[in-house]
Amino acid sequence: MGATIKDVAKLAGVSIKTVSNVLNGYPYLTEATKSKVEKAMAELDYRPNIAARNLRRGRTGVIALALPNLSSPYFAEIAQLVVGEAGARDLTVLVDATDGDLEREKLVADGFRSQLLDGMILQPWSVSAQSLRERGDRSPLVLLGERRVMNADSVAIDSRAAAYAAVEHLLTMGRRRIVAIGSKVRGRGGRRPQEPGRRHKGYEEALAAFDVPFDPDLLSHPEGDHTPEAVARAVDDLFRTTTDVDAFFAFNDRVALGVMRALLNRGVRIPDDIAVIGIDDIEAARLNSPSLSTVAPDKAGIARTALEMLADRIAGSDRPARQVVADFTLIERESTKPR
Amino acid sequence: MGATIKDVAKLAGVSIKTVSNVLNGYPYLTEATKSKVEKAMAELDYRPNIAARNLRRGRTGVIALALPNLSSPYFAEIAQLVVGEAGARDLTVLVDATDGDLEREKLVADGFRSQLLDGMILQPWSVSAQSLRERGDRSPLVLLGERRVMNADSVAIDSRAAAYAAVEHLLTMGRRRIVAIGSKVRGRGGRRPQEPGRRHKGYEEALAAFDVPFDPDLLSHPEGDHTPEAVARAVDDLFRTTTDVDAFFAFNDRVALGVMRALLNRGVRIPDDIAVIGIDDIEAARLNSPSLSTVAPDKAGIARTALEMLADRIAGSDRPARQVVADFTLIERESTKPR
Repeated sequence: MGATIKDVAKLAGVSIKTVSNVLNGYPYLTEATKSKVEKAMAELDYRPNIAARNLRRGRTGVIALALPNLSSPYFAEIAQLVVGEAGARDLTVLVDATDGDLEREKLVADGFRSQLLDGMILQPWSVSAQSLRERGDRSPLVLLGERRVMNADSVAIDSRAAAYAAVEHLLTMGRRRIVAIGSKVRGRGGRRPQEPGRRHKGYEEALAAFDVPFDPDLLSHPEGDHTPEAVARAVDDLFRTTTDVDAFFAFNDRVALGVMRALLNRGVRIPDDIAVIGIDDIEAARLNSPSLSTVAPDKAGIARTALEMLADRIAGSDRPARQVVADFTLIERESTKPR
Repeated sequence: MGATIKDVAKLAGVSIKTVSNVLNGYPYLTEATKSKVEKAMAELDYRPNIAARNLRRGRTGVIALALPNLSSPYFAEIAQLVVGEAGARDLTVLVDATDGDLEREKLVADGFRSQLLDGMILQPWSVSAQSLRERGDRSPLVLLGERRVMNADSVAIDSRAAAYAAVEHLLTMGRRRIVAIGSKVRGRGGRRPQEPGRRHKGYEEALAAFDVPFDPDLLSHPEGDHTPEAVARAVDDLFRTTTDVDAFFAFNDRVALGVMRALLNRGVRIPDDIAVIGIDDIEAARLNSPSLSTVAPDKAGIARTALEMLADRIAGSDRPARQVVADFTLIERESTKPR
C-alpha cells in the first residue's frame, strides 16, 4: 500500500483539501504551497488512485482519438487540444494514428476494444458513411471532419466555405491565375475523403463568382504524403506546362509552406510575383518568413465541442445526433497582398 | 457474424492467400488485384479479426507511447515514426500526451492499465529515475530520452554531444557571442529533466574548447511552453541587456524557428548578422526561409530501436537492460555561415 493523500497533507503541513486542489490544478494556489505539496508527493512517491475512482463510476476514464496521422501538424495540434480538453475532464486520451487505413478506422468505429474505452473520437478518411451508420457497437463516438453520418455526432468546419474564403481573398487582391494544390479528390482504395473534394468545390465556386474561367492546368496534386519534397516536385511539374501563375491556394498549410519554399528556390518573390494562402493556421504558418496567410479553423472550439458531445454520450445522453459546424477566420499575413 | 476472408476471396474471385496478402500489405500485388479485393472487402464490410488473433497469442496487440506533448513537432514526428514501425509488427500504438505531469508519467511507468497493453514506450519528464527503478509493474517498458535507469531499456541521442556539435559548428564559423536559448535546467516540480541540462553542458564545453569565456548574460529561457510568442519575448528581453550577439544556439528547432522569426522582425539579417542553429531537424526546419541548420537525431533509428527492444520484451526476453545511444548528424543549411 503506497502513500495516501492524508500522508501527503501531513508531510506538507497542509490540509487534505489543499492537496486535492494541487492535484486538480486549482488555479489560486501560491507557488510556495504548490511546491510544498509537490515535494511531499515526490518524497512519498504518492500516486492518486484515479483507476479506483473511475472503477467506482463504472468507467475506464480513457478515450481514444483516432486521426489519420500525426506527421500533419494540423492533426498533431488537434490531438494536443483534445488532450488538454480531456485533462480538464479527468479523461486520459490515447491517440491512434490510423494512417487512413480502412481496417484500422473500422476497428475504431466498431468500438475498438470498447471494454477499455469510454468513448472514441474519429477523423475518418477511408471508412464509408454507410459503415459508420451501420456500426454494430453503440459505444460513444464523435466524428471529426465532414463525413456526416445521420446517427453520429460530428464537428468540422465547412471546408467548402473555408476554401471559398481563401480563394476570394486572392481574387479581391486582383489575382486571377490561381493554382489549387492538394490531395486529389479520390482517396485511398477509391473512397472519397470529403474535405479535398469540398475544398476543390469552394475554389471553383469562388472563381465563378469572380468570372474567372476554371483552368484544369492550374490543378496540382503532390504525390503520396505531401512531404516538402513531393510538393516541390509538383510545383516544378506545374511550371513546366504553365508559367502564367499569380497565386497558389493550398488545401492545407503544410502544402502551402512547401509551395513557398519551392517558389523561393525558383527565385519567385512572395507575395509580389505570386501570393500564397493555405488552410489550418498551423504554428509554422506564423513562424515562416514570409508568414503565411491562411484560413484558421477554430481548433480549440472543435476540440472542446468534440469533448463536450462525447462526455454527454458517456454520461448516458441519448439526445439526437448533432452535426456542429465550427467557425473559421481568414488571417491575412505577409504571403498575400494586392497585385 | 460478419463476412469472412473466404467470402471476400469468393466475391473478388481470388484465393484466400491473395486476400491475406492484401491485408498484410504484401508489396508485389498488381493494382488491379488490390482494388478487386478492396472493393470486395468494402462491399461485404469485412473486418479482419485482429482481436481474435491477438487473443490466441495471449496479447492485446496494443502498446502505449507516452510523450510529454504533441504540440512539439519533434514529439509528433517521433510518434508518427513509432506508429509506422509498430504497424509493420501488427501492433497498434495509442499515444498518450502526459504533459510532463508526474502523476501521468507514473501511471504509465507503473503499468498503466497493463491488462490492456502489451507494453509501453515512455519519454519521462518529471518522474524520477528512482521511481522508474522501483516501479511495481514488470510489464515491458522502453524509455526514450536520457533519463537512464539501470533495469530499463532506453534509447536516446547523447544530448551533450549534440549540443557540442551544434555550438562547435558556430565556433568554427568564427562566431563568438553565442546565445544559448531553451528550457531552464530545472523542470516542473523541481525535478531535473536530463536533456536541457545536458544541452547546456555541451554548450559550455564547446565554448571552453575554443577558449571563449562563458557569459551568463547570453542565456535565455523563454517562458512556459515555448510558443513563438514566448520565444519572441525572450529574444526582445535579451537584446535589452546585450546587443553584442553573433549567433543563437537553440536547444530545439521549434525554439530556433521562433528565434529566427523574432530576429527577422527586428531587421536582423540571418546568417550575415546572426547565425542560428537548433537540434531536432523537424520538417519546418527545411521548409523555413532561411532554412535552419540543425543537429538531426536519427529519429527513424530511435523509433525502430525502441520497437525492437519492446517487441523483444513482449516476446518474453529477459536479457539485461540495454541503453542504446542513437546517432545524430550535423546538417548545414542557410541559417549558418562563416563571419
